[in-house]
Amino acid sequence: MAGYADEKDALRARLRRIEGQVRGLTRMVEEDTYCIDVLTQISAVTKGLQSVGLTLLQDHLDHCVVEAARESDEAATAKVEEATQAVARLLRT
Amino acid sequence: MAGYADEKDALRARLRRIEGQVRGLTRMVEEDTYCIDVLTQISAVTKGLQSVGLTLLQDHLDHCVVEAARESDEAATAKVEEATQAVARLLRT
Amino acid sequence: MAGYADEKDALRARLRRIEGQVRGLTRMVEEDTYCIDVLTQISAVTKGLQSVGLTLLQDHLDHCVVEAARESDEAATAKVEEATQAVARLLRT
Amino acid sequence: MAGYADEKDALRARLRRIEGQVRGLTRMVEEDTYCIDVLTQISAVTKGLQSVGLTLLQDHLDHCVVEAARESDEAATAKVEEATQAVARLLRT
Repeated sequence: MAGYADEKDALRARLRRIEGQVRGLTRMVEEDTYCIDVLTQISAVTKGLQSVGLTLLQDHLDHCVVEAARESDEAATAKVEEATQAVARLLRT
Repeated sequence: MAGYADEKDALRARLRRIEGQVRGLTRMVEEDTYCIDVLTQISAVTKGLQSVGLTLLQDHLDHCVVEAARESDEAATAKVEEATQAVARLLRT
Repeated sequence: MAGYADEKDALRARLRRIEGQVRGLTRMVEEDTYCIDVLTQISAVTKGLQSVGLTLLQDHLDHCVVEAARESDEAATAKVEEATQAVARLLRT
Repeated sequence: MAGYADEKDALRARLRRIEGQVRGLTRMVEEDTYCIDVLTQISAVTKGLQSVGLTLLQDHLDHCVVEAARESDEAATAKVEEATQAVARLLRT
């Protein structure tokens, strides 16, 4: 089971909405929408994706990291390092 | 004409690829993919969107801001302020 | 003259305030302040730096890019590309 | 004890280096350094601060969150939510 098992439906719905927003971006470009308005919408879609990322991170810490912590110090340290690197990748985008 | 008129086809192709990546994210969630792998893919999609945003920004500066600069100081200042606010929104996501 | 010539005093004051905030971070670490509180303050300092960056960007577009636009297409394109790369670096941090 | 107790000296040294870099930014502005060069240095300082933030986050997860996980589900959930909000603040800067 993934850490986000309890929220699968909500996550799927949010991702489908983001997919629709990206389709909307393509339409904006096709219709020669003013650059700044396309950029504003790109910021909105990016924010939506990062928000899904934060939900996944919280679920991951709450389940996978907590389980590892109860197993051993080594398991916890490995999961924590992996999670920190995932946050570093989110920050660098 | 939008500032990105010369690159419409390329932008459309990049956005359609990003749309496919978001669909891939939904599939990853449906298949209970490990949280960290979904997060890594979210970082990749966000990076793709920001890269499209940077292309739009460059086209905007290169056409709309440059034209405004040749029109008047007031037109230039207004366009520059608008562009800076768009960058601020990108940074905050 | 740099593009921010008119705002040198204000920028200097903001940077000195940020320097004081970084000194405050060192003090927080020395006093074993709770990790999350240090992290919150790091976010505040980073936001301050990015805000100075946005001011510099706006001044740069408003002076250096506008001047280049009035000089030639080639000068404008070169300045715009340089500015876009600077925004890309800001986004990646 | 803070989660970063073992790394206090290293963190202090990194923060003092960042303080020196901010002082360097003030000097760049005083000397009318080219806008783009100041922006590049701002990106470098921001990256340094975020890197300190990631170290603090990893230490926090490795100590405070792991301890909470061994105490109770409620303690773990509270610490995880707090850590996720700290990451959200880092992302929004």
